[in-house]
Amino acid sequence: MPSVLVPQEQDFPRWYQEVIAKSQLAENGPVRGTMVIRPWGYAIWERLEAAIDERIKATGARNAYFPLLIPEAFLRREAEHVEGFSPELAVVTHGGGKELEEAIVVRPTSETIVNSSFARWISSYRDLPLLVNQWANVVRWELRPRLFLRTSEFLWQEGHTAHASREEAHAYALRILAEVYADAMAEELAIPVFQGRKTDREKFAGAEVSWSCEGVMRDGKALQMGTSHELGQNFARAFDIQFSGRDGQLRYVWQTSWGASTRLIGAMIMVHGDDDGLRVPPRLAPVQVVVLVARAGEGVVEAASRLVDDLQRAGVRAELDDNVEVSVGRRIVDHELRGVPIRLELGPRDLAANQVVVARRARGEKETAALEYVALEIPNLLAQDQGELLAQATALRDGRTRPAESVDEARELASDGFARLPWRAVGTEGEDRLAQAGVSVRCLVRDDGQPVDDPAAAGVDALVARAY
Amino acid sequence: MPSVLVPQEQDFPRWYQEVIAKSQLAENGPVRGTMVIRPWGYAIWERLEAAIDERIKATGARNAYFPLLIPEAFLRREAEHVEGFSPELAVVTHGGGKELEEAIVVRPTSETIVNSSFARWISSYRDLPLLVNQWANVVRWELRPRLFLRTSEFLWQEGHTAHASREEAHAYALRILAEVYADAMAEELAIPVFQGRKTDREKFAGAEVSWSCEGVMRDGKALQMGTSHELGQNFARAFDIQFSGRDGQLRYVWQTSWGASTRLIGAMIMVHGDDDGLRVPPRLAPVQVVVLVARAGEGVVEAASRLVDDLQRAGVRAELDDNVEVSVGRRIVDHELRGVPIRLELGPRDLAANQVVVARRARGEKETAALEYVALEIPNLLAQDQGELLAQATALRDGRTRPAESVDEARELASDGFARLPWRAVGTEGEDRLAQAGVSVRCLVRDDGQPVDDPAAAGVDALVARAY
Repeated sequence: MPSVLVPQEQDFPRWYQEVIAKSQLAENGPVRGTMVIRPWGYAIWERLEAAIDERIKATGARNAYFPLLIPEAFLRREAEHVEGFSPELAVVTHGGGKELEEAIVVRPTSETIVNSSFARWISSYRDLPLLVNQWANVVRWELRPRLFLRTSEFLWQEGHTAHASREEAHAYALRILAEVYADAMAEELAIPVFQGRKTDREKFAGAEVSWSCEGVMRDGKALQMGTSHELGQNFARAFDIQFSGRDGQLRYVWQTSWGASTRLIGAMIMVHGDDDGLRVPPRLAPVQVVVLVARAGEGVVEAASRLVDDLQRAGVRAELDDNVEVSVGRRIVDHELRGVPIRLELGPRDLAANQVVVARRARGEKETAALEYVALEIPNLLAQDQGELLAQATALRDGRTRPAESVDEARELASDGFARLPWRAVGTEGEDRLAQAGVSVRCLVRDDGQPVDDPAAAGVDALVARAY
Repeated sequence: MPSVLVPQEQDFPRWYQEVIAKSQLAENGPVRGTMVIRPWGYAIWERLEAAIDERIKATGARNAYFPLLIPEAFLRREAEHVEGFSPELAVVTHGGGKELEEAIVVRPTSETIVNSSFARWISSYRDLPLLVNQWANVVRWELRPRLFLRTSEFLWQEGHTAHASREEAHAYALRILAEVYADAMAEELAIPVFQGRKTDREKFAGAEVSWSCEGVMRDGKALQMGTSHELGQNFARAFDIQFSGRDGQLRYVWQTSWGASTRLIGAMIMVHGDDDGLRVPPRLAPVQVVVLVARAGEGVVEAASRLVDDLQRAGVRAELDDNVEVSVGRRIVDHELRGVPIRLELGPRDLAANQVVVARRARGEKETAALEYVALEIPNLLAQDQGELLAQATALRDGRTRPAESVDEARELASDGFARLPWRAVGTEGEDRLAQAGVSVRCLVRDDGQPVDDPAAAGVDALVARAY
């Protein structure tokens, strides 16, 4: 059967567009750069959102909601912040049929509006730490949009916190990076990431230190999958957020902010997807098992329905496909495109033999199993396949990450992967040279695995790649 | 102790503002009419959202996400729709530092953009019914904003469906009204509503028929709490959504749309709240039981902590308050303001007597219970109190709804409640007269409880009130 997608090797960007369209994940909206997330894509996002939300709440943060519309003047209060975001703003000039007296922007991120509330909510050390998260849409005008990766509007969560000390803010920013982002990416998305520190060139507009999770895609490019920032007292001063300590002295708070977005769906596509379509990790799959009636025959639909019931009773998200009007081949292509983890095929001969064909998307393997026991085995197979995807993604990451000796070598290696070399061998000058070739320092890591406190210290490596 | 809130009887609107501020539900945002939903308010919304979402999915609809930004030209395709929404639009004229070539609006509702996708997704009867929902923010410029009730931005869900026949669309619109909205309002919010048909004057801009759920607030005013519309083929024609039937003929689809919003929190406040603060229905309460250490003493904090653990093991959302630095009185006032359903008070004397004081917010009663058994009894008490709030709200609704003989009498009765009279005795002329006095026909209902197919038929009553 000819492939329904252009092979990844042949044209990865085109493969990416085609698989999104044909798996019905998403499509372009009418305003340039906007995206419609279709039900299959949104159901994956809902599960990922729940998994991240649970981890955020476990750190003690609570959800809230801040307005979409922000006075433009708020952004100007923090100099780097407004400089960073001004080129991407959508500006509302008319409301309720009239021209507005002051310009309003659609939030590109919410530090300013959140902190205008924090200034009212915080007065004493008893109010700290204040840990707040919101799930929201944000708008950043994109000149070169790409579905899920760069869209003018995207969905995300953004956390905003205030602490009594720099040390506490630092520890919390790193906790979010590891316990929320890297953990959810490994456990739910089955994607192992590099956790590291951003260089000054790459850090968030308004932050003192930025940390990120960087994923390695199948084409060897990097995708920044989540960031956590130490804001120092920059916004505290801009919005006058002070607290009286136990000693009665007034001090500015220390802050963090952190976010992860629908871009994570892009990572899932580009790490796990293959020439047959998506491969959705079982933990995120809206349908984990499709029971496919291969051909009609006495008792086949009934047996398939019973199997779906048994699976659902076993806690599996299972769906029946008894649409025998459409050819088996075409239906299999569709389920593989959508990335349903396991497909159980049942026809008259299988039923007579009391067996079912088990096709596992993660391994690309087919086997047969006893019809009466298969429902009990499936939860186990799903867990195995979740692990299999993580193992494959780990092999991808490690295979695509190679040591380099020099900036020139790193630039070469970045054509199809990550290069790792001492940060001292790069420096801000080397970083500028890489940038001219479209290559960036994705993050700084230590060879002992500890967070990078001092970029200038020995044992600090740069991870260098081309990025989405 | 003097009341911390102005009494409802004295000044209901001021009570409403005060209770929202003091219970830390929400506050005004910097742009006029916008709202910050604080963690306590948002946690209630999250539970309500989950309860509504579950019911929506049970009808077969799936969630998706459509862009915030809509070309203004899209709205103009449906004449009534653009006329209804134009005065409330927020218009984006600049993006990415440039003036835009075509004006873009921030969605006030999404019929137009959803249907531009539906036109691509639907081609055959096999694609129908198409049942889609989204959770989103929308912007409608408000001249007289009020927190939760009328805000320039609000959160809601909006459902959009396409069907092969008018009958199917009609049945689905009514199913949403009853099985999703009225059911969630009764079971979760503990608010019984009137389900009825809107008059032509009050229907949605672009609909053929609108249905609504109307709640009766403590001041006798009406709050529209959810609407479900039959759009006929209006948008199908505007966006050219046709399907080929089994006979091969091309036909326009029949559509519905339906929404409920953060306004429901306003209903919860105004139906259940009293002079001491909120009363959050147990099913929605982020904290169902607070275990309050009344005074420190040997073993008291330990016993209270054990109680919290026991409650959590019993599936109860319980929280410890051992903040003995603050007076018991002030802490009790705060928990009552926030509307925590049950408070368990424990001090040294209680511990010595092996008992705990149980204060139930729904009944305003205090009793004592055996310390060792109370955790097991609490789930039962919470269920009872959920029922108690519904019973009180039903008595409120029924007590405030009185029969009227004439339009003049109905207008009088509407000063502090609902009036019910035959729609034939009102008519569009009577409706205009009521409107001049700030009174509206909230909905039409039949005396046999069936949906109103024909407003002109015998047995159709109008429910008349002042509305938020």
